[in-house]
Amino acid sequence: MDFPLPRIEGVVHDPGEYIEIRELIGTRLAALLPPADSEQDRVGLAMRTSLLSGGKRIRPTLLVLAGRGLGNNSPALLDLGCAVEMVHGASLILDDLPCMDDALLRRGQPTIHRQFGEDVAMLAAVALLTDAFRLVASIPGVPAEARVQLIARLAEASGMQGLVKGQYRDLHDNAHLCSAHAALTTNELKTGALFEAAMAMAAIASEAGAFATASLSRFAQALGQAFQLHDDLTDDHGGYGKDAGQDRGRTTLVALLGTEAVRCRLGVHLEEAEGHLAQIFGPDQSIRRYVHVLFTQLARNL
Amino acid sequence: MDFPLPRIEGVVHDPGEYIEIRELIGTRLAALLPPADSEQDRVGLAMRTSLLSGGKRIRPTLLVLAGRGLGNNSPALLDLGCAVEMVHGASLILDDLPCMDDALLRRGQPTIHRQFGEDVAMLAAVALLTDAFRLVASIPGVPAEARVQLIARLAEASGMQGLVKGQYRDLHDNAHLCSAHAALTTNELKTGALFEAAMAMAAIASEAGAFATASLSRFAQALGQAFQLHDDLTDDHGGYGKDAGQDRGRTTLVALLGTEAVRCRLGVHLEEAEGHLAQIFGPDQSIRRYVHVLFTQLARNL
Repeated sequence: MDFPLPRIEGVVHDPGEYIEIRELIGTRLAALLPPADSEQDRVGLAMRTSLLSGGKRIRPTLLVLAGRGLGNNSPALLDLGCAVEMVHGASLILDDLPCMDDALLRRGQPTIHRQFGEDVAMLAAVALLTDAFRLVASIPGVPAEARVQLIARLAEASGMQGLVKGQYRDLHDNAHLCSAHAALTTNELKTGALFEAAMAMAAIASEAGAFATASLSRFAQALGQAFQLHDDLTDDHGGYGKDAGQDRGRTTLVALLGTEAVRCRLGVHLEEAEGHLAQIFGPDQSIRRYVHVLFTQLARNL
Repeated sequence: MDFPLPRIEGVVHDPGEYIEIRELIGTRLAALLPPADSEQDRVGLAMRTSLLSGGKRIRPTLLVLAGRGLGNNSPALLDLGCAVEMVHGASLILDDLPCMDDALLRRGQPTIHRQFGEDVAMLAAVALLTDAFRLVASIPGVPAEARVQLIARLAEASGMQGLVKGQYRDLHDNAHLCSAHAALTTNELKTGALFEAAMAMAAIASEAGAFATASLSRFAQALGQAFQLHDDLTDDHGGYGKDAGQDRGRTTLVALLGTEAVRCRLGVHLEEAEGHLAQIFGPDQSIRRYVHVLFTQLARNL
């Protein structure tokens, strides 16, 4: 462990509850995706392969736990989590394509376009994106007024204001804007956008007040920065079943500031993230325990 | 004119009203898309180039006219039309990519990926798709319950049930399923899906009854088939500023049935389309006059 891990008083680690949510997400996604029975349906198969071959389900787990922490026990949280995971899956398929990162491996397996071809990969990404919106539009038990807000928030995170802009900057702007500020903004767009959307969606679905909504948003921003820094730090040795060295030639914070400064910054972001959560949730709530486990894993993997 | 054009009694052609709607759609799209002032924003520029370089705006014009014909004079119809046009634009960008049709020209200009690169083209398509959903989610003056229905309908047409499946079949299944039935199903998915969605959206936004909704849906199916047949017939000589011969090697109805049989079938579909419209709208209504003009243009271009 190379950075100061935030201390959370009274945290008792019980991994059972997060594993249960992760499995619920997996089961629900399997039910929502096109059935696996059609040999000819290569697009459906690519969608299933992309979303049902592992993955930590961090975004949906955080969404479900944040919603529950806000007193919402509706099964709609699970479907909202699945919608966020679909958008995440679509963005990974697209990021890996030859014209983007040209990645060979993802989660230890050949990337989707290497398994199914570029055309099928691209269609699978589009289908995952549109399915995410279709799912949120028809979630039972959520008022229509909240559903349109949820859709607008998810669309914002996926489009020009979020993932699209982040990916573009990651590919193009880094060559020109070699500053820590620019790298941080790209991180925020690329990784933070979907974390923020997930937390905003938990808040909307749970009718959270302005303070809780704002704190969750700040938590998500800090968490997104931390994750992207962690990615930058681990990129050189490719320890996650992804291609190593994907970031070479790009301006990462590691290149700008050096490894030690980035480790320190990562610790600061995690502390910030934990601080924002602490403003809403007590230490005995699941989301804080889960975040503590996540942070511990992040620290261990460095 | 090589096919029997349906006769519409009492139709007086006044092109002014369709030109006005087409211009309104263009102006509204220009306002909705990312501003053109940022040199660095290549994704935004690709979105604007894709949607503001001509285009007949058939889908949004039909949507606005169908809505008005159903007694709806809300400006929301224009925004719904823009959302449909964004999805259409996204599908054209993706269809033209090297891993899909590998097209060089669209509307007489180099295709988007040739102007901006594959990565920017793909991101622009994703941004157009997500912007379409964001737009519908926040259209003022439409009840939230209708907005979620509109989003679900648009997502259905864009995803695995519509454009995605149609494009996949167009690329892959034709090699195996060399039947007129298979070619017709592909046409319906590829071209009909968005026409159908546009008409369903006009019906939802205008609170149309079951009969009008069903008739509009059948009108859209027949119109979609007619357009795809027209595309198949004109493909050989590339008369629309698109690449000629894109369909070579694929099973089109022209290859299966011959040119004359397809012309005849096109006439039948146009007659069907006009018949379904006639069940809802009187001959003096704009949508029937517009469809008559469209059909006349289709016939002239063969």
